[in-house]
Amino acid sequence: MALNPQYDDIGKGFVQQYYALFDDPVQRANVVNFYSATDSFMTFEGVQIQGAPKIMEKLSSLTFQKITRVITAVDSQPTFDGGVLINVLGRLQCDEDPPHAYSQVFILKPLGGTYFCAHDIFRLNIHNTA
Amino acid sequence: MALNPQYDDIGKGFVQQYYALFDDPVQRANVVNFYSATDSFMTFEGVQIQGAPKIMEKLSSLTFQKITRVITAVDSQPTFDGGVLINVLGRLQCDEDPPHAYSQVFILKPLGGTYFCAHDIFRLNIHNTA
Repeated sequence: MALNPQYDDIGKGFVQQYYALFDDPVQRANVVNFYSATDSFMTFEGVQIQGAPKIMEKLSSLTFQKITRVITAVDSQPTFDGGVLINVLGRLQCDEDPPHAYSQVFILKPLGGTYFCAHDIFRLNIHNTA
Repeated sequence: MALNPQYDDIGKGFVQQYYALFDDPVQRANVVNFYSATDSFMTFEGVQIQGAPKIMEKLSSLTFQKITRVITAVDSQPTFDGGVLINVLGRLQCDEDPPHAYSQVFILKPLGGTYFCAHDIFRLNIHNTA
């Protein structure tokens, strides 16, 4: 495999598609289809899980309905196995919670003409007071 | 290659070592040794460059002397080629600039018994006012 010159479009397209599903409580569970049954890692607020079944459990535990999300930046890089590394910086507000900045990292890997999400790290940008 | 079970220690150790050099103006240029001459990508505030010589140019252009840095979280995941994906959330203040939150993503890849930094994405967490 080699670098995919379309990495920037792939990154931006994935982010748009992923959040369109995630932010809709009716469709949220469908994001599980982006992950591998065994070979995907998710770290959600410091807790790491592996594989689509555990990721599905995590998704099902999210009880908020309405998400208001604003993307500030999407930075993508090609990887030498034909994949894409994506870093998202944004802000979101769940239901009536206070709004928070967050960052989310994805690594997409090529699989049979499309991509699956091999790595996903999500962090709300909440800092201890110094 | 397979998953490296030491990924968390490797991630935390790299972050400590990298910033110890980066934050010292006398040693900052030495972080270039973490990158490959040809196969490393850096995206710094949305601008992408490739290879150690261009990364060295970028490092040399950073004129601040004193950096005060506080790490909030380091999340690491193992990759299936024996590497490590690292997401850092922190805050920094350069000289007398205002302090900012930032996020930085690294991917380390194994090379001859050690690791090189194949991917590096840095973003100050500055959001447009909504």
